[in-house]
Amino acid sequence: MSFASDSVGLVTPKKYTFEEPLELECGRVLPRFELMVETYGTLNADRSNAILLCHALSGHHHAAGYHSEDDKKPGWWDACIGPGKAIDTNHFFVVALNNIGGCHGSTGPISPNPDNNNMPYGPDFPLVTVRDWVRTHAMLSDQMGIQKWYAIVGGSLGGMQALQWSVDYPDRLERCVIIASAPKLSAQNIAFNEVARQSILSDPDFHDGYYLANDSYPRRGLILARMVGHITYLSEEAMKQKFGRDLKSGKFMYGFDVEFQVESYLRYQGERFSQNFDANTYLIMTKALDYFDPSREFNSSLTEAMKNTQCRFLVVSFTTDWRFSPERSEEIVNALITNNKPVSYLDINAKQGHDSFLFPIPLYVNTLRAFLGGEALLNEKTAQQGEIS
Amino acid sequence: MSFASDSVGLVTPKKYTFEEPLELECGRVLPRFELMVETYGTLNADRSNAILLCHALSGHHHAAGYHSEDDKKPGWWDACIGPGKAIDTNHFFVVALNNIGGCHGSTGPISPNPDNNNMPYGPDFPLVTVRDWVRTHAMLSDQMGIQKWYAIVGGSLGGMQALQWSVDYPDRLERCVIIASAPKLSAQNIAFNEVARQSILSDPDFHDGYYLANDSYPRRGLILARMVGHITYLSEEAMKQKFGRDLKSGKFMYGFDVEFQVESYLRYQGERFSQNFDANTYLIMTKALDYFDPSREFNSSLTEAMKNTQCRFLVVSFTTDWRFSPERSEEIVNALITNNKPVSYLDINAKQGHDSFLFPIPLYVNTLRAFLGGEALLNEKTAQQGEIS
Repeated sequence: MSFASDSVGLVTPKKYTFEEPLELECGRVLPRFELMVETYGTLNADRSNAILLCHALSGHHHAAGYHSEDDKKPGWWDACIGPGKAIDTNHFFVVALNNIGGCHGSTGPISPNPDNNNMPYGPDFPLVTVRDWVRTHAMLSDQMGIQKWYAIVGGSLGGMQALQWSVDYPDRLERCVIIASAPKLSAQNIAFNEVARQSILSDPDFHDGYYLANDSYPRRGLILARMVGHITYLSEEAMKQKFGRDLKSGKFMYGFDVEFQVESYLRYQGERFSQNFDANTYLIMTKALDYFDPSREFNSSLTEAMKNTQCRFLVVSFTTDWRFSPERSEEIVNALITNNKPVSYLDINAKQGHDSFLFPIPLYVNTLRAFLGGEALLNEKTAQQGEIS
Repeated sequence: MSFASDSVGLVTPKKYTFEEPLELECGRVLPRFELMVETYGTLNADRSNAILLCHALSGHHHAAGYHSEDDKKPGWWDACIGPGKAIDTNHFFVVALNNIGGCHGSTGPISPNPDNNNMPYGPDFPLVTVRDWVRTHAMLSDQMGIQKWYAIVGGSLGGMQALQWSVDYPDRLERCVIIASAPKLSAQNIAFNEVARQSILSDPDFHDGYYLANDSYPRRGLILARMVGHITYLSEEAMKQKFGRDLKSGKFMYGFDVEFQVESYLRYQGERFSQNFDANTYLIMTKALDYFDPSREFNSSLTEAMKNTQCRFLVVSFTTDWRFSPERSEEIVNALITNNKPVSYLDINAKQGHDSFLFPIPLYVNTLRAFLGGEALLNEKTAQQGEIS
């Protein structure tokens, strides 16, 4: 099998280890931690072409390419990362990682707990915040020798990390791309997260989070959590076009097996997710979402919070996204404008709701490409090299 | 204790019994059934002032007044029913009932099953449709000696029953009031119902619906179902105003106990509901919602379905209702206009989302009062009596 010419092809994740204790916002300390990292493209000599990619709720470090020739699907944002793609690996060195608290190789609830005979942390893994994550990203930057990121990019919860980066380490990034995100969750956002959490917490197979030690798994809870989440990722219009009121067998069955196609789809999504995701991680991720609020230490003023940012911003929203609606992106844009910060904002006409951020919508992809300016970077380098030679 | 002068005061429900077999849309037959009914006001001599009230998902026959002097809360629509209120019991005879499949006295899953030694029906109770309900309403009308209703009124799922009445028994109602409703569920509506159902069905305490026989109860499932439902009843704006990001203890606790006020509210609503509602009934009600589609036998044309209606219509929607948005009400209005049917439509500016239909919003209440025209009825009667005497 050969990969498409615009694919990054076979990739191998690498683990970075941090042996110093990490004090978290919750007050607890991780004695050590590891980050699972994947990179695409080549870091240039002056380390100025690195782009950090932050992942969303169920994301991870595997953003592009394939882990083996047998892989059926590439990484989660393969549509935008590769040679000649919007995030062009001919020009950029892309770093994608799995956050701590995750379940894809970085230290999290399924990792060994050194304070408990290396049994899995399970529910004893501390709750982490977006700010904690950004701190670990900065530590990773140090270990990789990247003083300043060419850009930090993220969608949804990933966009929150990018935003927090611009506040916490203003001199360590040149560009910040915040896609389909929000400056903090609304009451409705929190409410949906709470239903997802209660689905897991109230599952008898959850065992207070010690399901692994009990040789158990809260499959039902995780399925429900994902089903309710999934509804909020799709627009009403997309659901209508995709399923409408179509019946699986063409007629009403008057029972509780699948009748409508949309039921079939939701159950499938829930089932699949429950086989690949850790329940404690799901709880941690939803809590990180709830806690996120960079304005909290600035008298609830986002404008104050973003006052010292130094990078250029691109903010992107999608018209049918009702999880984080365009109005939420505008809050970020307005805070930047009030501060006279350089910001480009685009509200993309898209049908897929919140999930739009994963699709290669032409205007969206081209805007991302233009904002990152890989060609310009190349020309600049060539010019510099020309001068030097 | 005395009741307010505009309260219907103490009321006593009454059971109506139907001994003939009822064939349902699903093909199954109920050998007999009972309807729990409450009435307010006085039926006039020519039986021309009767208003039928149809209830929503979790509603029942107790719509106004009190069952005892110790009752803390009146019936669910007490704000609109009583002497001098929008549905004025000085003029009208109001009939409110609990639908079959319900759990408040009418034949349903907790009723004795004559085919099984009078054990509770449980999951053996057949799935019923809005059309089935309307048929039982017509049988009730016959038994009460009401040939023609002055008006049939309902909100949400109740509005669907009112709409179906106008299609199935066009000559048996003069007015039809359809509030915060829709001509059929969208894929997103069905998706939310499916999450609620799966919450109940996957609860180990559900026991395939035989929880009563197993001395059990799917409390957790019902709590989750109600939590997710409740989010869809409130507008995002109402949630923001009511809870925002307020914290219960004023600071982050970094745990899974209640942190945000909105979590506390949702859990309370879920808990309370789970103590007063039957899980099998909840499943039946959500299925009735999913199945509702009066256009189904008319080539999916609502216009064709409503062609033979003979009554006057009032359709009311609420600006922030995202469960059944104003656009869904407009579908009904447009079908009526295309048919040259008399319809008044009002989209009420209200903050409470879908729940708005339960609130005594002045413009809404006054519109309802004006459309029903109780004063005119009284004047008409007085004039007639004058002529007769």
